[in-house]
Amino acid sequence: MAERLVVIGGDATGMSAASQARRLKKPGELEIVAFERGHFASYSACGIPYWVGGTVDGPDDLIARTPEQHRERDIDLRMRTEVTELDLDRGRVRTRGLDGGTESWTGYDKLVIATGARPLRPPLPGIDAPGVHGVQTLDDGQALLDTLQATEGTKAVVVGAGYIGVEMAEALVTRGYDVTVLDRGAQPMSTLDPDMGELVHEAMCGMGIETVRGAAVTGVRTDGSGRACAVTTEDDGEFPADIVVLGLGVRPETTLAEQAGLPLGDAGGLLTDLSMRVRGQDAVWAGGDCVEVLDLVLGRTRHIALGTHANKHGQIIGSNVAGDYATFPGVVGTAVSKVCDLEIARTGLLEEQAKSVGLQYVTVTIDSTSRAGYYPNARPMRVKMMAERRTGRLLGVQIVGREGAGKRVDVAAVALTARLTVEEMTALDLGYAPPFSPVWDPVLVAARKAAAAVRAAAS
Amino acid sequence: MAERLVVIGGDATGMSAASQARRLKKPGELEIVAFERGHFASYSACGIPYWVGGTVDGPDDLIARTPEQHRERDIDLRMRTEVTELDLDRGRVRTRGLDGGTESWTGYDKLVIATGARPLRPPLPGIDAPGVHGVQTLDDGQALLDTLQATEGTKAVVVGAGYIGVEMAEALVTRGYDVTVLDRGAQPMSTLDPDMGELVHEAMCGMGIETVRGAAVTGVRTDGSGRACAVTTEDDGEFPADIVVLGLGVRPETTLAEQAGLPLGDAGGLLTDLSMRVRGQDAVWAGGDCVEVLDLVLGRTRHIALGTHANKHGQIIGSNVAGDYATFPGVVGTAVSKVCDLEIARTGLLEEQAKSVGLQYVTVTIDSTSRAGYYPNARPMRVKMMAERRTGRLLGVQIVGREGAGKRVDVAAVALTARLTVEEMTALDLGYAPPFSPVWDPVLVAARKAAAAVRAAAS
Repeated sequence: MAERLVVIGGDATGMSAASQARRLKKPGELEIVAFERGHFASYSACGIPYWVGGTVDGPDDLIARTPEQHRERDIDLRMRTEVTELDLDRGRVRTRGLDGGTESWTGYDKLVIATGARPLRPPLPGIDAPGVHGVQTLDDGQALLDTLQATEGTKAVVVGAGYIGVEMAEALVTRGYDVTVLDRGAQPMSTLDPDMGELVHEAMCGMGIETVRGAAVTGVRTDGSGRACAVTTEDDGEFPADIVVLGLGVRPETTLAEQAGLPLGDAGGLLTDLSMRVRGQDAVWAGGDCVEVLDLVLGRTRHIALGTHANKHGQIIGSNVAGDYATFPGVVGTAVSKVCDLEIARTGLLEEQAKSVGLQYVTVTIDSTSRAGYYPNARPMRVKMMAERRTGRLLGVQIVGREGAGKRVDVAAVALTARLTVEEMTALDLGYAPPFSPVWDPVLVAARKAAAAVRAAAS
Repeated sequence: MAERLVVIGGDATGMSAASQARRLKKPGELEIVAFERGHFASYSACGIPYWVGGTVDGPDDLIARTPEQHRERDIDLRMRTEVTELDLDRGRVRTRGLDGGTESWTGYDKLVIATGARPLRPPLPGIDAPGVHGVQTLDDGQALLDTLQATEGTKAVVVGAGYIGVEMAEALVTRGYDVTVLDRGAQPMSTLDPDMGELVHEAMCGMGIETVRGAAVTGVRTDGSGRACAVTTEDDGEFPADIVVLGLGVRPETTLAEQAGLPLGDAGGLLTDLSMRVRGQDAVWAGGDCVEVLDLVLGRTRHIALGTHANKHGQIIGSNVAGDYATFPGVVGTAVSKVCDLEIARTGLLEEQAKSVGLQYVTVTIDSTSRAGYYPNARPMRVKMMAERRTGRLLGVQIVGREGAGKRVDVAAVALTARLTVEEMTALDLGYAPPFSPVWDPVLVAARKAAAAVRAAAS
C-alpha cells in the first residue's frame, strides 16, 4: 500500500515539494494530498507589486501551475481547505472546507509544513477598515486591485519602507497615485545600513515619493461609511489616504506548529535540520516562509521570507521525502529590490548584525559606474563593503544604484559562501568589456579599498 | 640618489605601474621614465570599437590620463619614443625618437616591460593596402575613422569573428555599413564551444550581418589607385569592400624581450612569477598583453589580452617595484562581449581545452530568462555549464543571451576561483526579485542540471 504525504500550504515550498516527490515516486508508491486555504496555488507572491502596478498581467501570469495541472500529475490539491489542527501523535491533520465544507481528519505517513508567513498588522484603531490592504497572497493582491478599481482617488499611503513597502510605492506611483511612505525607521530599507538607506531615501524623494522617516503610526481614520480615509501619526500629523497599504514585514505563520509543540526559534520560525526535517521529528519537514534558515555569515538562524529560498526548500524536501538526499546549507543574506529605476542589493551582514555577534570589522564605500565611464548609459552605483578585522574575510556588501547595479551583489554572495577574503577578491577574474563594466569592476574597486583598510587596521 | 624605474609602453599596464609606484615612492626616492611609441598613452583600447561606431566620443573620452597629467605627477612620460634594444647586462634601454629624434641609451635600476600585443596580419597579397585596418591602438582607431570619413561606400568586410571582429561588426553596422564577417572557423567566437558559437552566428544573421564560416581569406584585391576594394577567399568568391577591418586576434609584442633572451611561453608571451617579475630576473617586471598568465582552471599559462588583466598587472607591478607586496594569482578565463544587443560570456574551460589537459567532464545546457518570465523585458538566455566527472567541480560556463545575460558569468568566475562543485552551486544565495531574475536564477538552473549529470555519470 502507498504511503501518504500530506502537504500543508499550496504555494512555492508546498507545491515544489509535492512536485519533486511526485517526480521521484509513482502514485502507487506515494499518495500526495495538499491543502491550500486560498483561491490560488503555486504562484509568485513576489510578483504581486508588479501586478498591482500594472507592469505584469495577473493573476494568471503569476501562477506557475494551476490546481488542475497539479491534479493531472497525481497531486491531490484541495483548494480552499484549511488545516485547523495537527495531531502528531496519531499522524493526522484536521481540515475544514472554507466554502461550506465540513471538518474531517486526514492521516499522513509524512508531513510537509509550508504555511508561509503572515503580514504584520499591529492592533491599531481602524487597521482592519476597508481600504487598508496587506499584500502577501494573490487573494490580497486581488482585493487590493478591486479596491483600486472601485476607488476614485489619488492619494496612497504605504506604511513601512522595507522591500514590500518600496515595491508597493513604485506600483502605486506607476498607477498615478501620489504616494506617501511612512516608516518608523531613521531611513527606509532597514535591510541596509543607515548610510546606504539614506541613498534610497534621497532617490525616493527624487521620484516624487514622499517619505516620512521616524513616523509612529497611531491608527487609520475612517470616514462616515467606515472606510479608511487617513493615516494618523504621533508627531507627524495625519496623511489623507484613498488607499492604505501595509508593508510592515511578515512573521512566520506557525500557529498550527506551535499548538502541536514543534520547536520554534527566536524569530518565531520553525527550526529544521539541514535536510529541512523539523528538529526532533522523523516524519515532518518544513520550509519556506514559516521556517528559520541558518545564516552562514551570522552563524545563527534567522527568518528570511524570500521566494528563492522557499523554492529551494521545496525541492529539497521533495527529494528527502521521496528517499533521495538533498540539504539546504544555509543562506548568506542576499536580497535585491527595486523602486522605480533604483536598484537596491545587499548580502552578508549589516554593521549592526556584525556587532551583535561580536565581529570586529572595517567598512569602505566607493562610487563607480555600471559600465565604462565613457560608455552610454553608464549609471552611478555606490558599493559598501565590510570585512572582518585581522582575517580580512568578506562580511557583507551593499549596493545602491541604477540599472546594472543590483545583480552585482551575486559576486559577493558567492565570495561569502566560499569565505574569501577581500584581498583574495581583488584578483577575481570578473567579466570586463566597456558595455558591461569599468575596467575595474565596482566590486573589485571596493575589494581593493577594503583590503587596504584591513591592512591599515592591522598596523 | 634616487633609483630609476624605466617603463616600456605607456598604456594600461605601463602607466598603472608607474602611477602606483609614484603613489608609494616620492620623486626623491624613485625617478620614473616611461617610453611610448604612439601618440596616446593611458587609454582604453577596449573602447575603440565603440568610438569607431560613434557610440562614444573619442579619442579624449578613452584617455584615462593625459601625458601632461602624468608629468604633473612626476612621471617622465616620453611620447613617440620607441625602445629599440634592451641591454639587460648593463641595465639600459636604447630609444629612438619617432618624430626625428636621435637614438640614445637610458639606464635603469628597475625595468617594466609593457609592450602589449600586435594584431595578427597574415602575409597575404594586398593586406597592407590603404583601406585595410587593424584596431589595436588609438592610432589605429584614428586611422580607421579617417578612412571612414574619407570613403564613400557602404560595404565593409571584417576578417575574423572573435571579440574584436564581432565588436567591429557592430560598430560598422551602427555606422550604416553592410557588414560581412569572414571567419575561417566553423562558428564565430572560437572562444565559445561550437554549439554556443552557433547562437552567435544565428543572432548576427538576424542583425543583418552576413557571416561566412569556414572562409579561407586569400588576399585583398586593390583597385587602380592601389586601394583595397575586395577581399578574396579560396572557396567563397570575393567580397566587395569599401573598407576592410582585421580582427584576427593578437600576439604578444615581445620582439625586444626575445632579442634580450628573456623567457617566453608556448603562446609567445613573457613568463613571469606571481609577483609579475620576469622569470630569472631580479629587476625586470612584465605585465599586460605581452605576458602569459596562469589559467587556474587549465593549470597552464595562456596568452589572454584583456584590459582588466593589464590594469591589475600594472597595479601589482607598481607595488612590487616600490617595495610593497602584491601578487597576481592567475585567471579563470572570463570574457564578456557584445554584438548589437547580443551578450556573449564565458569563463573557465571550453570542451576542447578540458580535453587538452586530460579532464573528463559532463556538460549541460539550459534555456532561461533574465527576469521572471512574467516580468516585462524578460529576455532569453542560454547557459552551458561544464563540471568535472566524479568530483563535480565546476569547469566552465558559457552564456549567450540578451540584456542581463553577460555579467551573470561573474557568479561562475567566483565559483571557479573558489573551486566550488556544481552541487555546492545549487545552494548559492543569489539575488532574486522578479525584475532581476527568475526565482531560480539561470545559473542555479544550470547548476542543478549539471549536478544531476555528475551523479548520473557516476552511477
